[in-house]
Amino acid sequence: MEPGPGNAITDVAGVRVGHTTLIRGDGPLRVGEGPVRTGVTVIVPHDGDVWREPLFAGPHRLNGNGELTGLEWIREHGMLAGAIGITNTHSVGVVHDALIEAGARAHDMSDAIWALPVVGETYDGALNDINGFHVRPNHVHAALAEAADGEVAEGNVGGGTGMVCHEFKGGIGTASRRAGDWTVGVLVQANYGSRDLLRIDGVPVGAAIPTSEVPSAWDQVDVLSARGGAEGGSIIGIVATDAPLLPHQCARLAQRVGMGVARMGSYASHGSGDLFLCFATGNRGLSFRAGEDDPRPTVGLRMVVDEHINPLFEGVAEATEEAIVNALLAAETMTGRDGITAHALEPGRLVAIMREHGRV
Amino acid sequence: MEPGPGNAITDVAGVRVGHTTLIRGDGPLRVGEGPVRTGVTVIVPHDGDVWREPLFAGPHRLNGNGELTGLEWIREHGMLAGAIGITNTHSVGVVHDALIEAGARAHDMSDAIWALPVVGETYDGALNDINGFHVRPNHVHAALAEAADGEVAEGNVGGGTGMVCHEFKGGIGTASRRAGDWTVGVLVQANYGSRDLLRIDGVPVGAAIPTSEVPSAWDQVDVLSARGGAEGGSIIGIVATDAPLLPHQCARLAQRVGMGVARMGSYASHGSGDLFLCFATGNRGLSFRAGEDDPRPTVGLRMVVDEHINPLFEGVAEATEEAIVNALLAAETMTGRDGITAHALEPGRLVAIMREHGRV
Amino acid sequence: MEPGPGNAITDVAGVRVGHTTLIRGDGPLRVGEGPVRTGVTVIVPHDGDVWREPLFAGPHRLNGNGELTGLEWIREHGMLAGAIGITNTHSVGVVHDALIEAGARAHDMSDAIWALPVVGETYDGALNDINGFHVRPNHVHAALAEAADGEVAEGNVGGGTGMVCHEFKGGIGTASRRAGDWTVGVLVQANYGSRDLLRIDGVPVGAAIPTSEVPSAWDQVDVLSARGGAEGGSIIGIVATDAPLLPHQCARLAQRVGMGVARMGSYASHGSGDLFLCFATGNRGLSFRAGEDDPRPTVGLRMVVDEHINPLFEGVAEATEEAIVNALLAAETMTGRDGITAHALEPGRLVAIMREHGRV
Amino acid sequence: MEPGPGNAITDVAGVRVGHTTLIRGDGPLRVGEGPVRTGVTVIVPHDGDVWREPLFAGPHRLNGNGELTGLEWIREHGMLAGAIGITNTHSVGVVHDALIEAGARAHDMSDAIWALPVVGETYDGALNDINGFHVRPNHVHAALAEAADGEVAEGNVGGGTGMVCHEFKGGIGTASRRAGDWTVGVLVQANYGSRDLLRIDGVPVGAAIPTSEVPSAWDQVDVLSARGGAEGGSIIGIVATDAPLLPHQCARLAQRVGMGVARMGSYASHGSGDLFLCFATGNRGLSFRAGEDDPRPTVGLRMVVDEHINPLFEGVAEATEEAIVNALLAAETMTGRDGITAHALEPGRLVAIMREHGRV
Repeated sequence: MEPGPGNAITDVAGVRVGHTTLIRGDGPLRVGEGPVRTGVTVIVPHDGDVWREPLFAGPHRLNGNGELTGLEWIREHGMLAGAIGITNTHSVGVVHDALIEAGARAHDMSDAIWALPVVGETYDGALNDINGFHVRPNHVHAALAEAADGEVAEGNVGGGTGMVCHEFKGGIGTASRRAGDWTVGVLVQANYGSRDLLRIDGVPVGAAIPTSEVPSAWDQVDVLSARGGAEGGSIIGIVATDAPLLPHQCARLAQRVGMGVARMGSYASHGSGDLFLCFATGNRGLSFRAGEDDPRPTVGLRMVVDEHINPLFEGVAEATEEAIVNALLAAETMTGRDGITAHALEPGRLVAIMREHGRV
Repeated sequence: MEPGPGNAITDVAGVRVGHTTLIRGDGPLRVGEGPVRTGVTVIVPHDGDVWREPLFAGPHRLNGNGELTGLEWIREHGMLAGAIGITNTHSVGVVHDALIEAGARAHDMSDAIWALPVVGETYDGALNDINGFHVRPNHVHAALAEAADGEVAEGNVGGGTGMVCHEFKGGIGTASRRAGDWTVGVLVQANYGSRDLLRIDGVPVGAAIPTSEVPSAWDQVDVLSARGGAEGGSIIGIVATDAPLLPHQCARLAQRVGMGVARMGSYASHGSGDLFLCFATGNRGLSFRAGEDDPRPTVGLRMVVDEHINPLFEGVAEATEEAIVNALLAAETMTGRDGITAHALEPGRLVAIMREHGRV
Repeated sequence: MEPGPGNAITDVAGVRVGHTTLIRGDGPLRVGEGPVRTGVTVIVPHDGDVWREPLFAGPHRLNGNGELTGLEWIREHGMLAGAIGITNTHSVGVVHDALIEAGARAHDMSDAIWALPVVGETYDGALNDINGFHVRPNHVHAALAEAADGEVAEGNVGGGTGMVCHEFKGGIGTASRRAGDWTVGVLVQANYGSRDLLRIDGVPVGAAIPTSEVPSAWDQVDVLSARGGAEGGSIIGIVATDAPLLPHQCARLAQRVGMGVARMGSYASHGSGDLFLCFATGNRGLSFRAGEDDPRPTVGLRMVVDEHINPLFEGVAEATEEAIVNALLAAETMTGRDGITAHALEPGRLVAIMREHGRV
Repeated sequence: MEPGPGNAITDVAGVRVGHTTLIRGDGPLRVGEGPVRTGVTVIVPHDGDVWREPLFAGPHRLNGNGELTGLEWIREHGMLAGAIGITNTHSVGVVHDALIEAGARAHDMSDAIWALPVVGETYDGALNDINGFHVRPNHVHAALAEAADGEVAEGNVGGGTGMVCHEFKGGIGTASRRAGDWTVGVLVQANYGSRDLLRIDGVPVGAAIPTSEVPSAWDQVDVLSARGGAEGGSIIGIVATDAPLLPHQCARLAQRVGMGVARMGSYASHGSGDLFLCFATGNRGLSFRAGEDDPRPTVGLRMVVDEHINPLFEGVAEATEEAIVNALLAAETMTGRDGITAHALEPGRLVAIMREHGRV
């Protein structure tokens, strides 16, 4: 399938992405001081007042060793309101409250705004002083302020700054696919998986580059947290599409993120927080509280006829695969706390391996 | 809230209900011969070609000790196709295949029809020779042929023929409520609960008529099946509305059936199969396989704005309560296999008890 | 059924409850200054190292217009780790990160601790300066430090400080029931429902005390938030039991909280966040990351045989009803921001109404 | 990972598989007469009284365009009782009732037996007279009677007789993996997917053998049913393990079947019924109704510690991939109704393609 013009989630009109990247200090871990290798990424789902105008949305849990707040309300009324935040595991709360504050600020602090934001996380404790709680509310506000359409920075940026994927340096990646007149885009924060499992387009790339050759960051960590390690890690996947999907159709697309992850070799290990959310911009003008302002008992919608949904399914699986590959290729080798180093997947090496297997 | 003109699920335009009631023989149980106290009830959800044109729908499981087939597909694509069947536990299969056959017959046996029907059940083994498998395909076809709008027979009819509820004679009951311009109707096959728990409009009616006064059928059964007994039993609840609900909104209404059941005193015991399904006729012209015949990539819909959904929620809870009461009051005392008798709730007695508690 | 010795969730051995109550200022709302009518309640689920030793647990969503974080992980591996926090809607994040910090502090900030805490909320914006974000990390640490077994303060305390229930003053309530050798306890933060719906033991108490007689706080609010209003509000329900339940059995108990809520007259309105979680202390010694420390491939457990689970179901429904009544009766009339007043349900009045309906 | 001794689901001790294969007639379709290309496969989950002694179990829905009955009860109490049946779409009911009858017969027709059987299906209407309803109760009883451990016939047998997979001849396949001291086995009825998507061990085999070279059965079908076609089809996957898994852990394994399916190239198309169920024999002696016979309030269990569950996850994904390949390689070219032919995947051709891609 063909990618969109930017091969990014921002190919879906109105979707904007912003990052705040925090890289500070070197050397031994001193909790509260650093080294800092973390950040926050925000996805603004449309170009209107996102704090008041929701979109249809649906989630999927491939493996739940992670957090993606706000899902109970999305499951219940089928809608996403506000901007989505993605950060490290120990900063979910600060990002959560900062998103509420951002919505309140946008409406003079005195008005009825949204208050059940969606915040996801993966664990960056291999490289980052995660117990230092370095993400602050202003970092969220800055990411929102700089959120833009067009090109999306990938790799060691935003929430993906300190992430590790298949024991290479991971982080943020994105890709998109055209499905007839519609576009579907995927953004991942990739922080999962062991080296030996990595496959790219079916080729066993991980087995060809063992950790004896390119070392794993996790092998350099003394005490593994409950959510780290080569078999831990996590992947958050956000899907956007301009197709007019209903909530249950969004959830179906969200499950296909997991199929892309499976094709990369993952079996969604116990320690992995593999949580996915899809939203659809194809129906606008929804409300989550019309109240006195909106006496409409019903609204008109459009829905993708199910017989035409397969290209969107396939597009999600493909775009997920490519978003992960893009995260791996965009990320650069990074040394974090205690000198622990996560090595990048070297593009030249990848091309050579693909060639050996009859690809490229 | 006000009931619809017939106070029945058929107040939702296009909904039809048909029963085949099987009552035959008396005396000791001879498996395969009788006595027979069973049947099948069908609900035809709209007045078009139900085998090809689906409606939005959503289920809820309050307690899953029961069967309601077809739910995986309803959860996945949010639609109900075909007629719904309700019968005894050991006749789910025959009704299932007969519904497929009915769809095929309606399309010359050679065409593409629907094949994942919805069939629910409760256990009538206290009164009926349930291991005799007395429901046959022709009983399903007969119920479909006689399905009609207007008045719905209640009590000892169709799938409800041999049912027991709160240790009184139970069976089929229905009720409806007006919610602004919309109507919501509920039909139950009521076969659950112990006597002492029964409450009507909050009044502890069951405690006022102990089984020492009006005996329980279950106390007369020698060997209790895994799904019988005063603490077993089940209730199937089908909700219809003409409001244009999306699938996830239907599921929300379905969960409110359980709130009506709770108000009747039930706590949804372990042995109970309390399964509910809501469908909405407010969007017509949907397809589940447009194929070459239908090149539409999208269709237009209407959706109830969530801020206006509360009267539908409240209507479901109220109509469920009244449907159960109607089942109890319409059912007449019945003696079944081995002379086991399920006694009716006597209306005069009920009125007297309500009066003592400051009602009526 | 009989209550436990304290008629509280703390009747389950090892369960501790702590509150930090924030009441400060009077008069007009000045965002960031007050008046403050809020707080945080913590439930510590057992007497061991809760940050490292989990318990089996399971949730239920009756209506999802609310937040209860950590549920994806509980659904996935069936276990709750750490203390539970309950607060106002805009303080979920600060409580979330403070609970992570508390766990890290308890293990020298350098160790592998848990990081997916459970934090629930209801909306106290009628009385409280909710956009002032007055709950701070130290309030969470204080609630943890004072958490105790024995008597639980109810009404205007902790997370329940500024809550409104059935348009009376609401807040924290708790109750318990004995089920054979087991105990089941429920704690609610009650903030839901309109006046007219309120029923107590089936008696229509709300209809007997209309808002024309005892005014509603919501009628005094100018701009209703998306989650406030008489038809909004929410209820968080936490269930504890010493019965050895497996995770799916915990989820079954959690659904029965909704049956208690239904008996109180609620139909779980669209604006309500009715989220429930049950945990079971009957299996101890579980781990969520054994790692090198724990080479056990399997552990021994006990499980309640399902045929004996009904008293626990019934106990949850009953204890939920009584916990809500206890919240209403313990809460005192409170005046908050802009002079808005939530009136208490007057006990003498309640007794009189019950008497008129043949109770007491 | 290493397969078990038989590389089959029967490597899990006590698991037995039986098939009844129905192949009769040739030439044009005459509904009710044939040609017949169908059957039924049964899986008996342990060597005890399966109608009375359940096992822990858990399901997953990858795509719900299919039926797998009995799931509501499995989701509710976490247990599977009785034998599992797999057949064609229009024979679910007859198999369902026949399994109830088999259970009743095994207990003298007069006793309390199980009545909520698990029956799955895929659509064989390309080759089979599916509207002829050729599966009869005696075919189910025969499959049960011949159910055996040891070698499992694969390909055109039992429920898989008339199935088509990736537009090659499909059917029944099985494989197993050793995970430490435990074994996990998978059996599939494979009937899904388009040719171009097929990948084996990551190699794009389907693209290398286009339908212009080896024709597709679906291209020979005039009228496609709602559930047929190259993008329709379905796969039922049953997982067995001797590890002592709890119900929620079984559901986690069931989701990993979908990861194996994804690796084969599928994106789980809209028309696909991809339903999976895992059961675990590692805890025996459970009951689903102890009643008077069993006064035990609790029973002792063992549970796999989650940190040791990854090899089981990985084993399911691998065994699923191999079970599908085994189905494709065991199935022989078959001509069915109206002369429609489904061609086998030729093993020599497969080996050559794998070699070109640096495998084997």
